[in-house]
Amino acid sequence: MKIAIYGYGNLGRGVECAAKQSADVELIGVFTRRDPATVKTLTGVPVYSVEELQNFRSQIDVLVLCGGSATDLPKMTPVLAKDFNVIDSFDTHANIPQHFAGVDAAARSSDHIALISAGWDPGMFSLARAYSTAILPEGKDYTFWGRGVSQGHSDAIRRIPGVVDARQYTVPIESALERVRSGEMPELTTREKHLRECYVVAAEDADRATIETAIKTMPNYFADYDTTVTFISQEEMKEKHSSLPHGGFVIRTGKTGLNGEHTHSVEYSLKLDSNPEFTANAIIAFSRAIWKMKNRGDVGCKTVFDIAPADLSPLSHEELVRTLL
Amino acid sequence: MKIAIYGYGNLGRGVECAAKQSADVELIGVFTRRDPATVKTLTGVPVYSVEELQNFRSQIDVLVLCGGSATDLPKMTPVLAKDFNVIDSFDTHANIPQHFAGVDAAARSSDHIALISAGWDPGMFSLARAYSTAILPEGKDYTFWGRGVSQGHSDAIRRIPGVVDARQYTVPIESALERVRSGEMPELTTREKHLRECYVVAAEDADRATIETAIKTMPNYFADYDTTVTFISQEEMKEKHSSLPHGGFVIRTGKTGLNGEHTHSVEYSLKLDSNPEFTANAIIAFSRAIWKMKNRGDVGCKTVFDIAPADLSPLSHEELVRTLL
Repeated sequence: MKIAIYGYGNLGRGVECAAKQSADVELIGVFTRRDPATVKTLTGVPVYSVEELQNFRSQIDVLVLCGGSATDLPKMTPVLAKDFNVIDSFDTHANIPQHFAGVDAAARSSDHIALISAGWDPGMFSLARAYSTAILPEGKDYTFWGRGVSQGHSDAIRRIPGVVDARQYTVPIESALERVRSGEMPELTTREKHLRECYVVAAEDADRATIETAIKTMPNYFADYDTTVTFISQEEMKEKHSSLPHGGFVIRTGKTGLNGEHTHSVEYSLKLDSNPEFTANAIIAFSRAIWKMKNRGDVGCKTVFDIAPADLSPLSHEELVRTLL
Repeated sequence: MKIAIYGYGNLGRGVECAAKQSADVELIGVFTRRDPATVKTLTGVPVYSVEELQNFRSQIDVLVLCGGSATDLPKMTPVLAKDFNVIDSFDTHANIPQHFAGVDAAARSSDHIALISAGWDPGMFSLARAYSTAILPEGKDYTFWGRGVSQGHSDAIRRIPGVVDARQYTVPIESALERVRSGEMPELTTREKHLRECYVVAAEDADRATIETAIKTMPNYFADYDTTVTFISQEEMKEKHSSLPHGGFVIRTGKTGLNGEHTHSVEYSLKLDSNPEFTANAIIAFSRAIWKMKNRGDVGCKTVFDIAPADLSPLSHEELVRTLL
């Protein structure tokens, strides 16, 4: 399978590394909106301008779109699905149905296949919710995120006047996790599920109390949470907070038996040193799956729910059954 | 979807309860090898002799086979796949490829669909292994079972002279779990992964020391484990050890990055009050999936690896994408 990367940020670099781990995947190039001469890849794979992309149509089996969900992917994925098999990691949950419809129409109109929202949430966490809900229809599921860096919340802090740099960690509250695991199916408020830990580098002349208040009262992002703000130096930020760990927990508890007398707990959790690299590895597996499906004649937009797990693997069906079933 | 149960033990009763939880599933009857007059169902669903099964061919969409893996299913599933769409929970891992081949040939010869080895291991644990291995190809996975009752080990103890009743719990060793979660990818011996806790009711005239030695030195079952033996009364057995809890953990850790500098841990765990009832609920979801696939023209033997998660759910694709992705 020949792939190419469209957009070379953290996720694009992750896909570049992920491709190296799979013998059946060949990365033919990186396409960038910047001047290709200014972009140096980790592995020496060639860099091209996006202007050249159409010349590579016959050489790319799956084009991996590594743009952002806010402004890039809503336009990029449907447009490129007209000329390529594409995959993205679109993660604005509320807008997924609309994104799906646009990509599906574009892909079907040109006999391409596409997969949107690959990664871990949406992605593996969605699968955990779907499997456990199908198996335990009388139950309730919970998703907790963290401990990990939220880029969106970090960016929101950086927009406050006087803030030089910021890093926000989302932290699941252990006591809430334990209540959920016990099977009591609690109703939990936003505040009861997660803490928000903020590390901030302030400008020398900035008023720290003002910054702290601005963070803690910010609607949607922080106002509904217990939030801590710690001011640190630029050196400490670089030394202790430059990686992008993340993870979380999907837990569903449910009842079975003639009168719901038995309780079951299903838990899926991730602990990731690098959010973009794990997402990239998931993207490679789902790219393999849609390329297999395309070769069987399937077209249109898919989600992780539409992929038989066997298609994610480079192993033959016989090997899978023998070694992993 | 109209289903019927073939074999009415713990699993059959679980399927009977599970069917009640899904509005799209109708249980039309239980088929037994015993005298139907001697079998009373939990919900009042009718009981028939297996001799009558052929008369119900047009009324059963999926026949749920609730026999044992040792002697029942290896014969039962391929034979019945000639006349019905069937599903089983065959769990003798080493013999799955052979079982698959026999069921596949039978189902294809008569345009039926079948799914073998539904449940949690094989089943949901197999899926956890397959997904995490596809996403983290450079890694290692571990399966731990318990704390839960192993029927096979309990039966093995009951065959020792002087034993009236026995219950064996498989217990994962917490320190081994922690080593695995840390990402160190240890090589663990059988003894390092699980303990075996045995509760035994001895005959009044039996020599307890002899029984204990017989258990602890039993090859394959106990000799390779740290095993505890506790003698209890029949009353205590009934009071404290009559349920069938089980569960376990599938953990894969793997590396990503240009030089494997980042570690990731993916963990799937189950904590089940009733092993047969959870297995039954999984069977209902996978029955729904193969019935959908059959209606799209698919035939032959399937495994959990061949099922797109969307097919497990009674929700429409649009609802799934909107609510769970």
